[in-house]
Amino acid sequence: MAARDITETWERLARPGGSIMYLVIDGVGGLPDERGMTELEAADTPHLDSLADRSVCGLLEPVGPGITPGSGPGHLALFGYDPLRYTVGRGILAALGVDFDLREGDVAARINYATMQDGVIVDRRAGRISTSTNQRLCNLIRDHVSLDFDGELYVQPVKEHRALLVLRGPGLDGDIADTDPQRVGQPSRPPRPRSDDARRTAGLVASFVDQVNETLADETANTVLLRGFDTYRPWPSLEERYGLHGVCLAQYPMYRGVSRLVGMDVHTPALELDDYPSVAQSYRDTHDFFFLHVKPTDSRGEDGDYDAKVEAIERADSLIPGLLDLEPEVLVVTADHSTPAAMATHSWHPVPLLLHADSARRDAVTSYDERACLHGGLGIRPGWHLMGLALAHAGRLDKYGA
Amino acid sequence: MAARDITETWERLARPGGSIMYLVIDGVGGLPDERGMTELEAADTPHLDSLADRSVCGLLEPVGPGITPGSGPGHLALFGYDPLRYTVGRGILAALGVDFDLREGDVAARINYATMQDGVIVDRRAGRISTSTNQRLCNLIRDHVSLDFDGELYVQPVKEHRALLVLRGPGLDGDIADTDPQRVGQPSRPPRPRSDDARRTAGLVASFVDQVNETLADETANTVLLRGFDTYRPWPSLEERYGLHGVCLAQYPMYRGVSRLVGMDVHTPALELDDYPSVAQSYRDTHDFFFLHVKPTDSRGEDGDYDAKVEAIERADSLIPGLLDLEPEVLVVTADHSTPAAMATHSWHPVPLLLHADSARRDAVTSYDERACLHGGLGIRPGWHLMGLALAHAGRLDKYGA
Repeated sequence: MAARDITETWERLARPGGSIMYLVIDGVGGLPDERGMTELEAADTPHLDSLADRSVCGLLEPVGPGITPGSGPGHLALFGYDPLRYTVGRGILAALGVDFDLREGDVAARINYATMQDGVIVDRRAGRISTSTNQRLCNLIRDHVSLDFDGELYVQPVKEHRALLVLRGPGLDGDIADTDPQRVGQPSRPPRPRSDDARRTAGLVASFVDQVNETLADETANTVLLRGFDTYRPWPSLEERYGLHGVCLAQYPMYRGVSRLVGMDVHTPALELDDYPSVAQSYRDTHDFFFLHVKPTDSRGEDGDYDAKVEAIERADSLIPGLLDLEPEVLVVTADHSTPAAMATHSWHPVPLLLHADSARRDAVTSYDERACLHGGLGIRPGWHLMGLALAHAGRLDKYGA
Repeated sequence: MAARDITETWERLARPGGSIMYLVIDGVGGLPDERGMTELEAADTPHLDSLADRSVCGLLEPVGPGITPGSGPGHLALFGYDPLRYTVGRGILAALGVDFDLREGDVAARINYATMQDGVIVDRRAGRISTSTNQRLCNLIRDHVSLDFDGELYVQPVKEHRALLVLRGPGLDGDIADTDPQRVGQPSRPPRPRSDDARRTAGLVASFVDQVNETLADETANTVLLRGFDTYRPWPSLEERYGLHGVCLAQYPMYRGVSRLVGMDVHTPALELDDYPSVAQSYRDTHDFFFLHVKPTDSRGEDGDYDAKVEAIERADSLIPGLLDLEPEVLVVTADHSTPAAMATHSWHPVPLLLHADSARRDAVTSYDERACLHGGLGIRPGWHLMGLALAHAGRLDKYGA
C-alpha cells in the first residue's frame, strides 16, 4: 500500500482563517431500544435539530471500521491525527491529564492501589480508597522508596485508587508490560520488558514494586498495579501542523491530557457544563480552536442507563445557543465514539456529525441523530477526515496545486 | 506515513466471540433492464427483504472503485485480506480447488487443452473436451513428458478442457507470463520469465510445452495453453489472523481453493444448495466462521440470462430461514462482485450488503437490493472493511487504545 496521509497535505496547505469549535458529546451515538429509537432519537434536542437543519451532517467512524475506540484514539482522530499512526500509552495521557510537566524521554505508567493477600490480588482497587488516603500513600512512597539510577522518581495521586508513576532520566524506555493481572485471585505480574532497550527500566520498576510492598505492608492498599507504560515523545502540535491555537474545556483529566498531547492550552479551574459558553468566550481573543468536552453522555451510556443518557443529551443540547452566540466560523458537534446504553460500553458504531458554517453545503437533514445523519452531505467517513473539513470550512486551507 | 492496514489492527484486537456466517451470492449485483429493474429488484425475495428490515445494510466495493474483481480477489477482500496486498495467481487457486496438496515453493498454472493448426490456435478449448478425455490426456503427458530438473512434475485434470500444472523442486519461481494468446488465429506465446529469478523455471515450462505438443500431436486437443503462473507461499490463516475456525460450503473448486488459501476447512462431499443449512449445522460445534457460496447467480449473469438470474436469486432467498435457524451471532449476505446479465460478465458495480446481528444499528432499509442498500447504515465501503464489521458485531474485537 502506498504511503499516503491526507493530513500531511492539510499541514502544507494550512493558513490563518476563522475559528473552529468542537463540541464533543462523548459517546453520544447509540443503538435502538425496544421501541426502535436510539438515545439521540428519543431525546428532545430542539437546538441540535434546528442547527442540523442549517448545517451539513454526516457520520464519522472515529478510528476505523469495526474498531471500538478508547477515548485517546477517538479524540486524536477528531484532532486530525491518524490514530493508527499516532499511538500513546495510557500512562502518558494520565500524566498529561493531571498537569504533570512531562519531558521528552520520561516513562509514565498508571498506578492502581490494590490489596494483596497471601501473594494474590484480592481487590484491584483496594476498596476504592479516598483521594486523601491516596495522597498519604503517595507521600509514604516518596519518603521511603529510592531507586538506584541517575534520575528522578515521581509518584502523584490522581483520584480515588488511581495514581501516576513517572521515571525521568537518561536512557529510559517504557516498552514494559502491565503488572496488573486484570482479575483477582492471581498474583501481580512482573514488569516484563517487551524489548531489550527496556530491560534496565523494567528492572527499576521491579525494584519500585518491591519497595512499595515493604513500605505499604500495614495498609489496606498494600501494593500497586501498574498499567499503560510508555515513553513520552512530544508530538507535532496543532499549531505546528495546522496553525491552530487550541484551548480545551473538559471536566475530566483524560481529555485535558489528550489535549496537551497535541499542544492545546487547557482551562484548569473546575468547570460546570453550563459555564462552557462563558469560559470559551474568555479565550475568544487568544485562541481559534475550541475543544469542548461533554462527559455525562458517555458515563450514563457506560452505566447502561438509557433514560439518564437521554437526559444527558438534552443537557448538552441546551449548550448550543450559548455556543452560537460566540459566532465561531465553524461549529462541529460530534463524538469520539458511540456508547450505546444497550451495550453499556464504548462501541464501533459510527457517530453523528454536524458541521455548521456559512460555507457549508446544507443538506436535507433536519435532526441530529444517527439515522438522519446517514443522509447528510458529508457521508460516512473516517474520524480523522474531520479536521480537514473543519479547516476548509473555516477558510484555513489554501488551494492544492495550480 | 507508516504502513497502515486496518486489518492488522483487527488482528491485534481479535478475541473469542460469537459465530459469523457469510452467505455469498456470487455476482448478485446487477443492472436495470429496460423496465428499470435490476435482477435483485425484479426477484421475489421475501426472506431477504424481511431480513434487511431487521438488519443494517450498505454496499461494498469489493476491491476498489472501478475495479472488476476476479473471484479470487473478490472473496479474499470479504475475508479481510486487502486484495491489493494479498495477491495470488489463478494457478494456485486452481490447485487448492482440486484438493492438490500444494507445498511452499510449488509453482502452479492452469492448463487449457486447445487445438492448434499450422502453428496458430484455432480453438482455445479444444471443442470443450470431456473430463474423461482430459483425464486420458493428462495420463499421456505423465507417461511421456519428463523435465530435466531435480523435482517433480504434476499434471492433473480439473474439468472439461481445464487441467492443472504443478512443478515442485528447489529454487523454482512462478513469475512467468501466460502462454495463452487469449484469441484464436494467433500462435501460443512462449512462457516468458517476468524476472531473472524465473528464467530457469520458464525454461522448464518451455520444454514441457514442446514435449506436450509432440505427445498430443494426433489428438484434437493437440496443445496446452498455460495461465495464472504463481509460486505458492502459504498465507497467514483466518485462525492466525482473527481467531476464526472457518469452514467452506461451496459447489465449485475455485471457491474451495480460495477458502483453503486462508486456512478454512472445506466440506468436500458434493452439495446441493438446499443442503447448506443442514450441512452448516453439522459444523456448528466445531467452527465459528461459515462461508456459504452460491454460484448459479453468477453463472446465469455470465450467460446474460436475466430471467434465469432472477430465478437463481429467488432460490438463494429460500435458504435464509434455514440459516437463521442456526442462529449465528452475525449473518452477512453479500457478493464478491456484480455480474449484471446486461453485461454477461463480472463488473465493478458495488454489491449489496446486509449484516444481521443483535448489535447492528438498524437502518430504514426494507429491501435487499442495490438501490435500497444505498440508504443503509453501513454506507458504501471497500470490501475488505466487511471482516472488521463482522468481527465487531460478533463481539470479537477488543477496544482500541485507552
